[in-house]
Amino acid sequence: MTQVQRKAVVLLSGGLDSATVLAWMQREGFACYALSFRYGQRHAVELDRARELANRSRVVEHRTAEIDLRAFGGSALTADIPVPKDRPESEMQHGVPITYVPARNTIFLAFALAYAETIGATDLAIGVNAIDYSGYPDCRPDFIAAFAALANLATRSGTQERGKFTIHTPLQALTKAQIVTLAVQLGVPTERTVSCYDPDSDGSPCRHCDACILRARGFAEAGVPDEFSAR
Amino acid sequence: MTQVQRKAVVLLSGGLDSATVLAWMQREGFACYALSFRYGQRHAVELDRARELANRSRVVEHRTAEIDLRAFGGSALTADIPVPKDRPESEMQHGVPITYVPARNTIFLAFALAYAETIGATDLAIGVNAIDYSGYPDCRPDFIAAFAALANLATRSGTQERGKFTIHTPLQALTKAQIVTLAVQLGVPTERTVSCYDPDSDGSPCRHCDACILRARGFAEAGVPDEFSAR
Repeated sequence: MTQVQRKAVVLLSGGLDSATVLAWMQREGFACYALSFRYGQRHAVELDRARELANRSRVVEHRTAEIDLRAFGGSALTADIPVPKDRPESEMQHGVPITYVPARNTIFLAFALAYAETIGATDLAIGVNAIDYSGYPDCRPDFIAAFAALANLATRSGTQERGKFTIHTPLQALTKAQIVTLAVQLGVPTERTVSCYDPDSDGSPCRHCDACILRARGFAEAGVPDEFSAR
Repeated sequence: MTQVQRKAVVLLSGGLDSATVLAWMQREGFACYALSFRYGQRHAVELDRARELANRSRVVEHRTAEIDLRAFGGSALTADIPVPKDRPESEMQHGVPITYVPARNTIFLAFALAYAETIGATDLAIGVNAIDYSGYPDCRPDFIAAFAALANLATRSGTQERGKFTIHTPLQALTKAQIVTLAVQLGVPTERTVSCYDPDSDGSPCRHCDACILRARGFAEAGVPDEFSAR
């Protein structure tokens, strides 16, 4: 008897969070299709790591969609705006950070939805996290719920009632330390993930941006050494 | 006293419907920012017409975003699947047509949302229409309502309560004949719009695809001659 594996589209950035989500979805038994984006990010080294992580994980397929978010500007991740450095965490908790890319997760999930429809999947997974870094509006649980509602109305699958979409967000309620612990449990090669918003071209982290600071604290609290490795 | 004009992002394909929406939004007093997509469509002549219509209408700005939906395949508009010809209208009313591009309107609206955030707009407009051609799931009123709900949660504007997003769909409840009449009233140069799914490279319509058939009936019922003009 053959059991057909359920397919899932997993957004894979090359960072610690999405790598952990991929490993989690595979442990859950999904046949994973990884999706990355070349969106004009200044930290494009992410994409090399995404491909490497996809290959190591033996995903069914890994696609990188080319989209140009620089056309819209407005973020330190895509425009000529400096990435903030050495901010105290108390400051990170307030307001929407300048590294917010307008509507990025909406766009990423919309592409994931298109991908899912073409392969016949109704499961998507994204590494949003609302605990340690709540400044991004499109990381909140109610945003994810609204996208799931939209997905069921937006698609051929939705009209055919072939299945309802599920957006998996296994990291939603975890602290960064818990994510590190989970990553280690799942065998994620954390040293090959890149979290930095402003890395060197070889992938070395700046150690001063919000993402580096939060990552460092997460590893410290989890009692795990963070062995960044260059390419 | 200066009255500040409200800004709106208008999705502009180069077709009759979106050209009519643009004229309608301008009559409503919005400062319009037009957004088109190069998404691998086989009818790319649309984009020349979109630029022409944007220029004639004196929009504030016209941007064309490059996205590659061909990567996902699955539609006669982007993949090597023939566009159906000479289908009876009774057949068009059933099921999702092969010209449906997976999650296209979700992706288009997501980009419009990003654009809106960067210019400080909370009004979007799209030429969806649920009457004459109801086969596309992402043209239905409940899809649009779900996207508006998502937009309010997805954005910086939403979190700052600076304003709530409105998705304008002025054609939603109109027949094709009513759209033609409205277009004429608004002074839209209908002969420069292209509706065909499979036009010649000079923009001449095939006259046999679903879009051509519905357009022809719309003009006939409105009592307006449809003077297609080549480039």
